[in-house]
Amino acid sequence: MNPKIPVISVVGKSDAGKTTLIVRLIPELKRRGYRVATVKHDVHGFDIDHPGKDTWFHARAGADVVAISSPNKLAFIEKVQNETPLDEIRKRIKNVDLIITEGYKREDKPKIEVHRAAVKGPLLCRPEELLAVVTDEPLNENITSFGFDEIESLVNLIETKILTDKD
Amino acid sequence: MNPKIPVISVVGKSDAGKTTLIVRLIPELKRRGYRVATVKHDVHGFDIDHPGKDTWFHARAGADVVAISSPNKLAFIEKVQNETPLDEIRKRIKNVDLIITEGYKREDKPKIEVHRAAVKGPLLCRPEELLAVVTDEPLNENITSFGFDEIESLVNLIETKILTDKD
Repeated sequence: MNPKIPVISVVGKSDAGKTTLIVRLIPELKRRGYRVATVKHDVHGFDIDHPGKDTWFHARAGADVVAISSPNKLAFIEKVQNETPLDEIRKRIKNVDLIITEGYKREDKPKIEVHRAAVKGPLLCRPEELLAVVTDEPLNENITSFGFDEIESLVNLIETKILTDKD
Repeated sequence: MNPKIPVISVVGKSDAGKTTLIVRLIPELKRRGYRVATVKHDVHGFDIDHPGKDTWFHARAGADVVAISSPNKLAFIEKVQNETPLDEIRKRIKNVDLIITEGYKREDKPKIEVHRAAVKGPLLCRPEELLAVVTDEPLNENITSFGFDEIESLVNLIETKILTDKD
């Protein structure tokens, strides 16, 4: 297994459509036989466990790590002191061919920026940081661009540029 | 770091008080300076992610692994084909001194069985499998026994028998 799973980051302003793009990319990648992980960068904190469940009681009692295992799903929730670097998260993910992050615009991974005319202002990233832009309006920048429906073409680019080392 | 984190399994019938015992053990272990993980064995399957959240959309779109990272919490949810052996789960947990499982009566780890008079019938485990029993009524078995409030004594036993290799 490749010890360094390739990573691409889908970045963009709030409501530009990061989740929308990711949920379109995943089925096309799966159709082509790839196993895919996603990593959501949540700067505010999140609640993933349900109050009243046993695992929620474990966490509330002070458990540093809470795992839950069933025949079709396995989950780990751990308390951390600081945000975990993306490369550390990558090391913890097994058995996938590609990791797609939602966010992580400041990390050094290949990026796809999503842009919508309704969300004003310039792109977040400099052209040289971007593998491509997904946009609903023509841009003046000299960057490979796709519409939100050109998923197959975008996955072709991901295959060519990112997944070429697939074993 | 110890590559094989010690594991104890809290087992017992439904409603015997497994979660109750675990949420009492954790604060006492934490007070003594141990870092603790819990593993819940859920034979039926669980929903840990919230409908409508970005990570829920990622999973629904087919992501094999979904991670979410914030400054104080890190979580991984992965789809599996079969139940994950406890030793595999142990390998995935880092930076704790003890793993307490809720369930896993058929695994070969040291066990504490919880028993309540109101939950009828004999113990689940044979005496030789058990480190101790936590019970609300006297038992005729020749097993080290504690009441549900004798948490300090039980943690003393866990320290002596299980955590002696702590580095």
